[in-house]
Amino acid sequence: MSTGKKRRREKLSQRRAKTSTAPGTPIFVGERKMDDIRIDIMSYGQNQVLELKDVPVQELPDPSEEGAVTWINVSGVHDLGIVEAIGRKFNLHPLTVEDIVNTSQRPKAEVFPEYLFVVLKMISYDDEAKCIDVEHVSLILGKGYVISFLEDEGDVFDMVRERIRKSKWMMVNLKSDYLAYALIDSVVDHYFLAVEKVGDFIEDMDDHLLSDPQPGDLQEIHRLKRDVLILRKSVWPLREGIGIMEKNGTSFFQTETKVFMRDLYDHTIQVIDMVEALRDLLGGMHDTYLSSVSNRMNEVMKVLTIIATVFIPLTFIAGVYGMNFRYMPELEWRWGYPLVWVVMVGIGGSMILFFKRKKWL
Amino acid sequence: MSTGKKRRREKLSQRRAKTSTAPGTPIFVGERKMDDIRIDIMSYGQNQVLELKDVPVQELPDPSEEGAVTWINVSGVHDLGIVEAIGRKFNLHPLTVEDIVNTSQRPKAEVFPEYLFVVLKMISYDDEAKCIDVEHVSLILGKGYVISFLEDEGDVFDMVRERIRKSKWMMVNLKSDYLAYALIDSVVDHYFLAVEKVGDFIEDMDDHLLSDPQPGDLQEIHRLKRDVLILRKSVWPLREGIGIMEKNGTSFFQTETKVFMRDLYDHTIQVIDMVEALRDLLGGMHDTYLSSVSNRMNEVMKVLTIIATVFIPLTFIAGVYGMNFRYMPELEWRWGYPLVWVVMVGIGGSMILFFKRKKWL
Amino acid sequence: MSTGKKRRREKLSQRRAKTSTAPGTPIFVGERKMDDIRIDIMSYGQNQVLELKDVPVQELPDPSEEGAVTWINVSGVHDLGIVEAIGRKFNLHPLTVEDIVNTSQRPKAEVFPEYLFVVLKMISYDDEAKCIDVEHVSLILGKGYVISFLEDEGDVFDMVRERIRKSKWMMVNLKSDYLAYALIDSVVDHYFLAVEKVGDFIEDMDDHLLSDPQPGDLQEIHRLKRDVLILRKSVWPLREGIGIMEKNGTSFFQTETKVFMRDLYDHTIQVIDMVEALRDLLGGMHDTYLSSVSNRMNEVMKVLTIIATVFIPLTFIAGVYGMNFRYMPELEWRWGYPLVWVVMVGIGGSMILFFKRKKWL
Amino acid sequence: MSTGKKRRREKLSQRRAKTSTAPGTPIFVGERKMDDIRIDIMSYGQNQVLELKDVPVQELPDPSEEGAVTWINVSGVHDLGIVEAIGRKFNLHPLTVEDIVNTSQRPKAEVFPEYLFVVLKMISYDDEAKCIDVEHVSLILGKGYVISFLEDEGDVFDMVRERIRKSKWMMVNLKSDYLAYALIDSVVDHYFLAVEKVGDFIEDMDDHLLSDPQPGDLQEIHRLKRDVLILRKSVWPLREGIGIMEKNGTSFFQTETKVFMRDLYDHTIQVIDMVEALRDLLGGMHDTYLSSVSNRMNEVMKVLTIIATVFIPLTFIAGVYGMNFRYMPELEWRWGYPLVWVVMVGIGGSMILFFKRKKWL
Amino acid sequence: MSTGKKRRREKLSQRRAKTSTAPGTPIFVGERKMDDIRIDIMSYGQNQVLELKDVPVQELPDPSEEGAVTWINVSGVHDLGIVEAIGRKFNLHPLTVEDIVNTSQRPKAEVFPEYLFVVLKMISYDDEAKCIDVEHVSLILGKGYVISFLEDEGDVFDMVRERIRKSKWMMVNLKSDYLAYALIDSVVDHYFLAVEKVGDFIEDMDDHLLSDPQPGDLQEIHRLKRDVLILRKSVWPLREGIGIMEKNGTSFFQTETKVFMRDLYDHTIQVIDMVEALRDLLGGMHDTYLSSVSNRMNEVMKVLTIIATVFIPLTFIAGVYGMNFRYMPELEWRWGYPLVWVVMVGIGGSMILFFKRKKWL
Repeated sequence: MSTGKKRRREKLSQRRAKTSTAPGTPIFVGERKMDDIRIDIMSYGQNQVLELKDVPVQELPDPSEEGAVTWINVSGVHDLGIVEAIGRKFNLHPLTVEDIVNTSQRPKAEVFPEYLFVVLKMISYDDEAKCIDVEHVSLILGKGYVISFLEDEGDVFDMVRERIRKSKWMMVNLKSDYLAYALIDSVVDHYFLAVEKVGDFIEDMDDHLLSDPQPGDLQEIHRLKRDVLILRKSVWPLREGIGIMEKNGTSFFQTETKVFMRDLYDHTIQVIDMVEALRDLLGGMHDTYLSSVSNRMNEVMKVLTIIATVFIPLTFIAGVYGMNFRYMPELEWRWGYPLVWVVMVGIGGSMILFFKRKKWL
Repeated sequence: MSTGKKRRREKLSQRRAKTSTAPGTPIFVGERKMDDIRIDIMSYGQNQVLELKDVPVQELPDPSEEGAVTWINVSGVHDLGIVEAIGRKFNLHPLTVEDIVNTSQRPKAEVFPEYLFVVLKMISYDDEAKCIDVEHVSLILGKGYVISFLEDEGDVFDMVRERIRKSKWMMVNLKSDYLAYALIDSVVDHYFLAVEKVGDFIEDMDDHLLSDPQPGDLQEIHRLKRDVLILRKSVWPLREGIGIMEKNGTSFFQTETKVFMRDLYDHTIQVIDMVEALRDLLGGMHDTYLSSVSNRMNEVMKVLTIIATVFIPLTFIAGVYGMNFRYMPELEWRWGYPLVWVVMVGIGGSMILFFKRKKWL
Repeated sequence: MSTGKKRRREKLSQRRAKTSTAPGTPIFVGERKMDDIRIDIMSYGQNQVLELKDVPVQELPDPSEEGAVTWINVSGVHDLGIVEAIGRKFNLHPLTVEDIVNTSQRPKAEVFPEYLFVVLKMISYDDEAKCIDVEHVSLILGKGYVISFLEDEGDVFDMVRERIRKSKWMMVNLKSDYLAYALIDSVVDHYFLAVEKVGDFIEDMDDHLLSDPQPGDLQEIHRLKRDVLILRKSVWPLREGIGIMEKNGTSFFQTETKVFMRDLYDHTIQVIDMVEALRDLLGGMHDTYLSSVSNRMNEVMKVLTIIATVFIPLTFIAGVYGMNFRYMPELEWRWGYPLVWVVMVGIGGSMILFFKRKKWL
Repeated sequence: MSTGKKRRREKLSQRRAKTSTAPGTPIFVGERKMDDIRIDIMSYGQNQVLELKDVPVQELPDPSEEGAVTWINVSGVHDLGIVEAIGRKFNLHPLTVEDIVNTSQRPKAEVFPEYLFVVLKMISYDDEAKCIDVEHVSLILGKGYVISFLEDEGDVFDMVRERIRKSKWMMVNLKSDYLAYALIDSVVDHYFLAVEKVGDFIEDMDDHLLSDPQPGDLQEIHRLKRDVLILRKSVWPLREGIGIMEKNGTSFFQTETKVFMRDLYDHTIQVIDMVEALRDLLGGMHDTYLSSVSNRMNEVMKVLTIIATVFIPLTFIAGVYGMNFRYMPELEWRWGYPLVWVVMVGIGGSMILFFKRKKWL
Repeated sequence: MSTGKKRRREKLSQRRAKTSTAPGTPIFVGERKMDDIRIDIMSYGQNQVLELKDVPVQELPDPSEEGAVTWINVSGVHDLGIVEAIGRKFNLHPLTVEDIVNTSQRPKAEVFPEYLFVVLKMISYDDEAKCIDVEHVSLILGKGYVISFLEDEGDVFDMVRERIRKSKWMMVNLKSDYLAYALIDSVVDHYFLAVEKVGDFIEDMDDHLLSDPQPGDLQEIHRLKRDVLILRKSVWPLREGIGIMEKNGTSFFQTETKVFMRDLYDHTIQVIDMVEALRDLLGGMHDTYLSSVSNRMNEVMKVLTIIATVFIPLTFIAGVYGMNFRYMPELEWRWGYPLVWVVMVGIGGSMILFFKRKKWL
């Protein structure tokens, strides 16, 4: 918890710095997750796939190359100099550069005259820390090129890379717009995994919540609620973003790609449905926990109270014959003592019977 | 519960496999419910109805046959090879094939240039397992043909089959669009049955919840909530789907069929209304259960506490006359002991009277 | 409750029968409320009002009569033969006939080329059974005629009949559209009565809920919630229906009638407002009941606990001087016994004082 | 409460009467708040302001007078004859007349060819009865005249009157539309006062709710909820009404007045915002009250239970040495009695210490 | 709290005064935060930046100066004379002047033929008083000039001032519309700070709520809820306002500025998202607090009840052997007394064992 807090405080001071600058001034907001920014280039033309690793920013290819599709993947966005250099090279609006380095930017899609700009959140489930990991992903889709910015060096897009290598996309007329689609789709596919992981935890908890509630469960429910909140915040605006792409970004997409975009939209809705279902379940869980705890508590209290209640009248009888009155005929009786036992056992027994019949025990 | 969990985990690994493939690559997601895929064909032309059972995929008829209506019913979607073969034959988009075999796909309707694609969920109530059974149903409506895909061999569409046999639809100009409507309608009709089954359980529970709440009721309410959730997830998107069919799929429907589609839409709304009403009832039920349990608990505690409270002052009095002071005049009195009984009975009685008047007892 | 259940089970089997038939096949769904269907005709032309009672279905007038307005009122919809005969005569769509006999059909308005079809729910409050009574009402508005279908023989439309007799509507140019409006309006007017009846019950309950909650109140709140639910289900779709009539049914309404339709819409909104307000009140009532019960419970427990608490220390003191130690100087004191009383009264009194000052008593 | 009930029952019977009449038949629904209807006229032309008090209905001026603006203020709407006479004179639609005398009509605006009809609710806070007072206000805005109907003789519009007298509106080209605006605006201004009054009560309650909850508070919260409900019901439809005036009533408003209408709309939104905020606060208040009460209760129970718990083991010890066994060595010890005191004080003290360390005390 | 109340009461009386005046009559509503109104002017033309401090209202420059951009910043709005003078000079509508001095006006944007009028709320977090501070800010954007009105002398816009001085905006073609944008943006940037401050408090509380709930926490949650409410009321209408500017204020904005406006809109949405998330968290917090408190309470009660329960049967046994029957054989036994101790320890021990096994202890 304390690291989360520290992280947030850092962000606050970064934000404070940001408040005092002009809009469009990029300031890196977030945690620095890696050391050096690393740029990889993959480009596929008529018959060939070309891969360049760790390209210096000065040697970036010109976006104007015709025919081929160039994919520039930038890992790490904390070095403003490099991001700004890329921005200048590809003629990006200052506000776009600002959004690329601001890792707290919410998902969105924006249409500029020369490019389409998409902000996404890559979600993965960190099994060790038992929490959701969010990574800021930005995509620039221009004519003939796609630039992707990742917060961290990762294997998010490895599948896409592999598929490019194998399937020679240019042959089947898949242009840069399909590449952008494929990248977004691979991000959305990861949402399913994260949602199902969280769903697993929720179901596990649901199983033992009714039978054996633990004090720690409340905290666990709390944690799951935050996870679901993060998921919601990542997916809901994305849906809107894809809608904007479909409506305003028509000039960037070929007709063939549009049916894929519609499919993507569909998947986003499906994730949203799943997230909302989880949210509903979690909402009910707090109540279930409380009912379950109070049920157990009631059971305990009831048994204990009954024990006490049975003995109180008996103790009273014992007290009566402990009195020191001079004239107490019962005390003199030969069978007084056994008789009092009989009476006490009788009273106690009939009380227990009564409780049993009332189903209180 | 554990089978549900196992099933889900399977799905997760299927999903994981899916994440690493290109979009449009069909991967079967779900439980394999039967062994072999089975294809049945029914086609009705001017004066005749033709039925073919268990047709091999290679011998599927050409969709271009004019005049007649061909209905191809595919039971089982786990054999990708066969589904893809059908897809190639009827020129289905790869994404459509993907959605046919992905049994976790939510209901939707999509308009392609050459066909209309509808995903539905067939709902039936499994009386033994006391849970709702969901089956993935896909429909392809093209010019002159309808293809239906079922997860399982079943009798869902038997009624439609019977009606075709009897009524010679071609005579009355009922084309493939009416067939598609009839199939969707038979699915929606089953929703009413499922909703009313769940409604029965809810009403039964409601009856005894106020008078005699059981600990197991909470679990039962839980189960019913899940059932209603499944119903909602099946019906809500369907409504939207029918709306899309009405708006964008006009070229696939004759004018005479449109009034039927409107009726279908109407029925979907009615199911939604019923599901929402059940949801409301269930939402209130948890509260009712809690109130009911705590009412009973309060009653128990009150009676027990009162018993204890009545005897505590009496025990005190007995304690007083059990003291061993040398000079206690009461102890020497001839009628001290009977008197103390009178006093104790008096105190106890007046306390009970007091409680009665206060309506605490 | 058991009649309600039986009724529902009947409906279920009717529904099951329905599932196995073609759409547009009318099957009576509901309770049979009367023995024979009864058809009354009222028609008013230039200067006269003509009334025919209990007309056989074969003798129904032709809808094409010009000038006059014919109102055919059908009481009872359980005899499919008769309803279908009417349907054939007036050229009604099979789906319309189906909706007329299906008493579980929700309110709606549908525009057909030759007529306007409206489904309503007549609401009345059954004072004896203390529940809301719903009757299925269907209206067909064609050129020059109105057909109304009632589930039961009733006096719902008597007021309208009376007004026709008195005021000679044709003189003032009130055509069949105004008649349809007048019929719907008389149904909506009854909603106000039902809403106010339920409102009365709610207010009565609200009055004694805070001061004197009864265990039965929970059930009563439950019952009222169901009543309000029924009201909502009757009124909400009606609003939509009137909207559809205004938008799509323009060819059926004269300009002069439109201002009346707007007024009707207005009344529907007002009923909805009232129903929603009742719902809000009821929603809060459950909480009020629980607070009230737990307040009373707390009060009881507090007083009882305090009594117990005061006597426990006193009993301890009595116990101390009941010990049998040989050397207990206090026991030998001349004023030991009175002194111990003084001490005990002092302790008890000061505890009560303390509780009073703390406002616990 | 009983007056409210009586009033409602009266309304019910009025309503019942209403149900049996034709639509457009005006029936006075409400409480009769004054004896005689009183009509005052104020008209301002080029250079002069003319005031006439208590004008008989026969002497009402003709609406067609050109140039001048005539404002007819009718106090009291229970005399149908007079209201209908005015309606005939100014050519009002029967439904308009019906809405004028039906004091339960919700706020709305309706555009007729010759006039604009607005229904408002005047809200004032009755400090003595501690409740909100609602008055039905209707406005007719025609060319060159405004008619206002009040339920009661009041000073609501005195400010407007004063301003007319002083500022000679005709000079500055303020026509009848501005007069209507000014009247509505003065009603809306009163909403702010009422909202702030209710807000005051809510804040006062909020202050003492956490520190010192009273049983009566629940009733008070109840009362405030009803007040807020009344406010909502008055303001929400008004907003819609002003929207209708802006959209459909353009022919009745000069361009200069439109900016004022927009301002009015703005104020209405602001009132709605405030009402919704109050509603939120009240919603949370019930919870706060319950928490507060249960906090206090818990505190009481805890202290009492602890007292009991400390003495129970001590009483047990005293009981042990009250036993009459022949051979009990401790009883014979010289310092047995003091020793037992030491032990008992020790046990009691260490228990209290233990409770203190656990922060239970 | 009492200052807040006093402030509100003042406002009430101001409002009451307002109710009795014509619309468009400016009346200062709010707290007077400073002594004198202070006007500063900054204007930047081709190559120069000109600053004038504390300009008298008579010497305000003419808005018609071409080329240059003039920014007039007015600190303090309580002196109606000065504000009205400015209004006359720049030809502001009386309603605009009214909204400028009415500090309770909600945020909005209004388009007038000659200028655009924006009302904002400046939010800052007062660390000492631990509450949110709201300042009323109004902006007038005309051709070539911007007028900003602040309630208080402050450094809100210092950053903007600094940037103008440094960057010579006119060189880069940044006109008055960009200045207006920059001012609004600096206000929105402050929202982030306030939201994060409140978020900090919420997280701090969340940390200790589960482990160690304090009675004061409820009040703290209350306070935070109000803060979030204020934030909501400031941000939600702003979003709408920016939308209005984008849609209707097109003539006031250059194409280049529009992308900045879109970014601003985006930021507003982001603030709204954050505020809604905080609201959700706070909503759950009350429940968490209650669960936490009741958990602790239950724990206390359970332990105490168990102690009592263990001793009650033992006390009963002691009571039995304190009876004074003549014939009680056990009393005469040599080892009776030790034996009774063994029995009592055995009973007590086995009860504790039983409780432990049941996990009640």
